[in-house]
Formats: sequence, structure tokens, C-alpha cells
Amino acid sequence: MTDTYTSLVNGGLTGSLAKKLGLPRPSVLRRHTPGAPLVTGPVLVLGGAVGTGDDADAVARTLLGWDLDVRRTAADDTARWGAVVVVLTEATHPDDLSDPVRELGSVLRSLAPGARVVTVSRPALATDAPALAAVRQGVDGILRSVAKELRGGATGNGVVLAGDVTVDATSVHGALRFLLSARSAFVDGQLLTVSSDAGSAPADWERPLAGRVAVVTGAARGIGAAIATTLARDGARVVVVDVPAAGEQLAKVANAVKSTALQLDITTPDAGTRIIDHAVRRHGGLDIVVHNAGITRDKLLANMKPEVWDSVIAVNIASQLRINEQLLASDAFRDAPRIVSLASTSGIAGNRGQSNYAASKAGVVGMVRATGPLLAEVGGTANAVAPGFIETDMTSRIPFATREVARRLNSLQQGGQPVDVAETVAFFASPAAGGINGTTLRVCGQNLVGA
Amino acid sequence: MTDTYTSLVNGGLTGSLAKKLGLPRPSVLRRHTPGAPLVTGPVLVLGGAVGTGDDADAVARTLLGWDLDVRRTAADDTARWGAVVVVLTEATHPDDLSDPVRELGSVLRSLAPGARVVTVSRPALATDAPALAAVRQGVDGILRSVAKELRGGATGNGVVLAGDVTVDATSVHGALRFLLSARSAFVDGQLLTVSSDAGSAPADWERPLAGRVAVVTGAARGIGAAIATTLARDGARVVVVDVPAAGEQLAKVANAVKSTALQLDITTPDAGTRIIDHAVRRHGGLDIVVHNAGITRDKLLANMKPEVWDSVIAVNIASQLRINEQLLASDAFRDAPRIVSLASTSGIAGNRGQSNYAASKAGVVGMVRATGPLLAEVGGTANAVAPGFIETDMTSRIPFATREVARRLNSLQQGGQPVDVAETVAFFASPAAGGINGTTLRVCGQNLVGA
Repeated sequence: MTDTYTSLVNGGLTGSLAKKLGLPRPSVLRRHTPGAPLVTGPVLVLGGAVGTGDDADAVARTLLGWDLDVRRTAADDTARWGAVVVVLTEATHPDDLSDPVRELGSVLRSLAPGARVVTVSRPALATDAPALAAVRQGVDGILRSVAKELRGGATGNGVVLAGDVTVDATSVHGALRFLLSARSAFVDGQLLTVSSDAGSAPADWERPLAGRVAVVTGAARGIGAAIATTLARDGARVVVVDVPAAGEQLAKVANAVKSTALQLDITTPDAGTRIIDHAVRRHGGLDIVVHNAGITRDKLLANMKPEVWDSVIAVNIASQLRINEQLLASDAFRDAPRIVSLASTSGIAGNRGQSNYAASKAGVVGMVRATGPLLAEVGGTANAVAPGFIETDMTSRIPFATREVARRLNSLQQGGQPVDVAETVAFFASPAAGGINGTTLRVCGQNLVGA
Repeated sequence: MTDTYTSLVNGGLTGSLAKKLGLPRPSVLRRHTPGAPLVTGPVLVLGGAVGTGDDADAVARTLLGWDLDVRRTAADDTARWGAVVVVLTEATHPDDLSDPVRELGSVLRSLAPGARVVTVSRPALATDAPALAAVRQGVDGILRSVAKELRGGATGNGVVLAGDVTVDATSVHGALRFLLSARSAFVDGQLLTVSSDAGSAPADWERPLAGRVAVVTGAARGIGAAIATTLARDGARVVVVDVPAAGEQLAKVANAVKSTALQLDITTPDAGTRIIDHAVRRHGGLDIVVHNAGITRDKLLANMKPEVWDSVIAVNIASQLRINEQLLASDAFRDAPRIVSLASTSGIAGNRGQSNYAASKAGVVGMVRATGPLLAEVGGTANAVAPGFIETDMTSRIPFATREVARRLNSLQQGGQPVDVAETVAFFASPAAGGINGTTLRVCGQNLVGA
């Protein structure tokens, strides 16, 4: 799980080879270590008129409350900015973008390594005045462009406030904190929508999952093992689940996170019930279920046998639907429960040779959208994480040249680490994300693939 | 406007150079010529149970009404299919995809050049049952994957039926016909939503704009000139608009389309009123306005002067908002009016060095979303077309190697022609698109760029 790739590619034989091939030299990303500062320098908050008590002032106050070095102007400052937060919630016409964007541009050359640019805005709705919808959607175009211009491991992301949500909503704070932090290292060019005031600030931001019981499927290795480790680091007791054939590896992970293992094929009809029973019996409850288990069986559709199609659908989506039904019907899953599913950029953009996988992962995107409202009735959420190119055993089997291209086709010019996916899962599982529901967040370094 | 690129790159010196570079050899796309058949072979309609009167049967009946050779099974058929329409509106669980997708896979090797795969489905909503939302979103993943697997100039796109819209709605017919036809040559991997029963079938599908008066801004050259020519071919009287500096070129276009020119800077405060006055005075009315005029002033945001930002916003979005206000206030723009704006894939995915352009083009996406409902009150629509890499004077100035890569980073492995953008504009302007409103459709060959 250590980030060996960037150190390899930047040095020695591989480094000089990568240089000869004309490949970009990726920056070493800032990743979370407990106790490290939230950001790496002062934070500039742009937007609105300073001191008028508007949204930008409110955001600045929130950041001050986290003991950050917050400024409202860039004037004569030689600081290397740790972050720039651009608050555009009160813009009503595209002309209003000019001032804050000019100020943003003026500091982009003074960002610290691993800096963050975060926009705060509202969604463009069919019911808005045309100029309002134009400026609101315009923020999307700016954010995604600026994210592509940043270097040095800096990222650009946005928080979108839907409906009546204000900048003081708990999950706006949660989203801001996540996007500013090293936990979002491989999240880039993305917009995260906060749709309600639900959620609560954790007693300890370093251990937001303290007292929570989580289940992670497919946890014997790779991304699943990283999710288990990360949830445990954040304070959760974690039940790790995988098929019996992976039992030995699964036991090691359970040992590492000091918890219990459950050998289970998730396509078993009563898999959900068995998960609930194990969690309740061994840990006294169940709060978080992470649907990470999944398979790929790649073939062009013209060459795909029916059983290949069916097996991917069965494991990657039908099993999750069945387990979720059993969770929703259980009295044990009622304390602000969280479902987090693994989608994929292939499920968003499609992928040649992966029509079955893309169908299942797009299915996950649709599933969480419709499951979220059902869980909201008991203070819960369902969200999905869509990884792009992540360095795992699976991707390490891709031939060298193809792999080198695929992993660099994103704004951070490198593949992500399993922990990057795990950090986003942990964020969705946390109490401060309770107002974010039904969404899918890409963890892809702003991968080029899209549709 | 002839497709010289594909003939060049496939033959002679350029062809062998492209081959040596390992670049894919793009297919010559099937493009519209008046009187040519709608599709190039029999049409297979998949989905549902044959003969039960379900949605797939209804679609088959519609296609039969267009004198197509329609089949409901692929059994023992050695045909080279002109199109496959997969009707998935009635699927309720991801398991339901298995049969129709297997049938689709079985014929993918028997598609004619320039064939079409079109899915018909419904959107995945937060209010759906989770399994229903999963299968509906799953169609998105399949469609986008299959589109990436097609070769020989074949494309894959989808029609999405929102709300109470049925497969017999006029604009479902309109969308199906457009996506099956050669008019959609460079539209690939896209989903087009029909949101109401508005619209009407044209008396003559070859001249759907007969009797309509259209205005096209930025019409002196490139995409704007192609739009003017295409609208005129489809029967419209076309007013061509451009700045006085382009007057000579504009006059040539006006002459070619046998209509009138209006020299006008669209940032003039009363530009909308002047457009209306000209159209009414010279042609007796105004039905269609195409906002094509736009500029690029590319710079990294860190190096962008305020006036460079402001000029792009002023021309590309603020002027359109102002003109639309004047159109909405005018009694002359009341007969099922159409606004069609040019967005860009840069406005959807962002682009390095184009934060101003992306802001303005994302602004267009937001603007049409909010303007559509205002026009619907008088039977009108507002939609946008988002071109990807199109072969124009502008893109011909990109350095050779960069251009070769950029134009091939899509499923059709080539840049589009101006006429491809124009065909989609003409479709949105047509009476059969009256139920498609507030949307943005990419014309990008399923360009890799996305977010």
C-alpha cells in the first residue's frame, strides 16, 4: 500500500526510461497520516464582499474554527497557499465570475505542493433564471478546467449546495474538510453535492468512525483490504468478508484490523441476513456496509458467452440489491446506517470489452441513487465511489505500455492507490457526510475517460 | 465540407505515415444525402416478448411505417443489419438485461458499414425501486461500452423516455429517426432524453424546416456556414449573421443559401431586437435562432488577463442571455420557437488552457436547461449542441502531432465535419424534436474527454 510507483518512476532506471518515453513525471501525492495538518499552508477564501457576513465570510469562519490560517485577500502576500476556497453561491450572472476568478488566477502560481482549490456553488436547475443557471453551470466548466491546469499534486474539486442547504450545514463542513485534506489525494475535478442538513460532526475528526461497526465485502486483498484498514484506522470495528477460497488471506486482514472475518459468497440468497447476524452477534450491531466485492470478465460483447455476462451481473449488482433488501428490512440497521458501493469510471463512461462490468457498475450508480432516499428515512445514506485507474494486482497484470498510458491519462498523471478509494469510502461512512446521499464520487485523478 | 480527411489519411503518403505511426484507420462515415435510404439494411428490434404489443412491438410498428425492413428475431438470418434497436423500457431488474443483450451480441459481427445501435430506455430516478434504477442506469453502461466496440463507422446511441412519455410520442419517433439516419454520423455513445409529448411530425421528413425562418450567428464560415447551409437544405429561410469585418464572406454564404445577411456584433445591447426586426421585415417572422458565434482566447488561468476572460464571457454567454431575453419578450417569437446554442465538450469536461471558454460553454449548458421551460410555454424548446473535435480552420491550426492525437481520441477515430454539428442543430430545430427540451447533446464521436 506504500506509494512505490511514484518513487520508482521518478528515479533510477524507470525514471530515465519514463523520461525518454516523454511520459510526464507525476508528483508524489499528499496522503493522510494521523495528526498531520489539514492543509499545508494558509487558506485563501475568495468570493463575495469581505466582512459583509455573506457565504464566503461564513466559510472563512468555519475554517478559522479548524485553526487554519485563513485570509480573505491575496494582497501583497508571499505565502505558498495551502488552499484556495472560491465561494460562488451568490453569483447570479456569468459576469459575476470575473472578480473571483481573476483573484484565483493571481495565486495559482503560489500554491504549495498538494494544495487544494475548492469551489462552493449551487446546482444549475431548470427552474432557475437563465442567467443564474448559466453562472452556476459555468462554475463546473471553470473547476474542471482549473483542475487540469494544477500541478504539484494539487487538486481542484467543488462542493455543490442543493435545495435549502446552507454553507453552515454539517455535510458542507464535512465535504470541505475532506476535499481540503490529504484524504482526497486522488479525487480531482469532481463536484460533490450536499443535499440535506442531515449528519453530525464527529467528536474527533481523526476517529470519525469510533463506535461504529462496519462490514467490507471482498476484503481479502487490494482495495477491499485497504478499505478495512482505513475504516479501522478511523475507529470502526470492521468485519471483513470474502469467499471461502480467500480464507487464509482474509484471516490475515482480520488479524491486521483486530476484528473478525466472515467467509461468505455474497451471491448466497441469505448473504445479507448472515452479514447482519454475524455483526450483531460478534459486535453488537451494524452501521456501515461497504459493497466492495466484484469481478471482471472482459470480452467484446460480440464474443461474450451468456454465462460470462450473467456472472458479472450476479456478483456485481444483483447480490448488492439482494443484500440491501435484507439490510433495509432489518431492525439492526437503523442507527444512521451507511451503504457505500464500489462503482467504476467504466460504469460512467463505458469501456471497450467491459459491457457486462459497465452495466453492473452503472447499475450501482442507479442503485445508490434510489437506495439513498429509503435509508434517509432512518438517517442513513447510500453512496458510491467510482475508482479510475488504481494500482492493484488486477491492473498490474495489464501489459507495460498499455498500463503506462492508462495510468497517466488523468490530471495527476499517475494511478491512484487502494487507500485513495478507501479514504473516500471512509468519508461517505462518516457522520459528517450524512447530508450527502445517493451520489457517486469518482476517485480517478480526473481521468480523461468520460462521456 | 467534403470529407477529405478520411480519404487522405487512408491513402497515399498520409495513409502510410498514419499506418507507420500506429494510428487507427478511420472509417468513412455515412452522411446524409437527400433521398438516400434511412438505414443501409434490415432493422432488428430486440426486447420484450414478440407479438405481445409491448414497447418493442410498438417501436417495430413505427419503423415499419417508415417502410423499413423490420425483423423481431435474428434467427438464421445472414443479413448485414442496418440497425439494431434494443427496447429496454420494460426491464425491472438487472437480470432482465441478459436476453436482449445476448441477442445484441450475436448480431454485432453482422452489422453493415455505418450501422446503428439504438437503445430505448427510461431514466434511473431517485424515486425508483433500487432494482429498477439499477437496470435503467445499467443501460447507460452497456450503451457506452458497445459504442466503443463498434467499428466501420457504426454508432451506438440511446433514446431515454422521461416522465410519462411513451414510445409513440412524436419526439421519440423524431429521435429514433435522427439516430438511425446518416444525419447523426458523428453522434456516438450519447443518450438523448425526450421529456414531453410536444412536437409534430413534419409533412416531409426530407424538408422538415419548410416554411420556417431561421437566424444563424457567426455564419460567415466554418460550423456557422455549415449550419446555414444545412438549415436551408432542410427547407428553412436562413438569415446569416456575423460581424461587419466578416461581411464579404458572410455575403457569399447568404448568396449560397439564397437569403439575407445581417452584419451585427452580437454583443450590441439591442442585438436581439435587431435580429427580430430583420427577420420579420425581410421574411415575415422568426422561428429558429442558432447561437453559433463564439470565440476562444486560450491561456492558463494563471496567465490570463482580465480582459481576455471578460471578452470570452461577453461573446459566448452574456450576449446569448441578452438576445434570448429579447426573443422571449417578443411577440414575433411565438410559433413553436426554437433556440439552439453551441456548447462544447470543453464546457462539459473542462479543458486545460480554456477556463474562460469552458465557463462560457458550461454556461450555455445551464442556460438552455433553464430557458427550455420558458419557451415550452409557447410550444418552443432550447437545446445545445456540444461539438468535440471538428475539422475547421480553428482546429487545422493545431500542430500536426497534437492534432492527429486529439482528432482520434474518440470511438470513430477521426474528427467530425462541420456538417455533423449542423445536422444536430437542424434536428433540434425541427418540429419532430419538440419534446426534447433543455438538453445538451454531444457531437463528438464519443470523444474520450469527460469528467
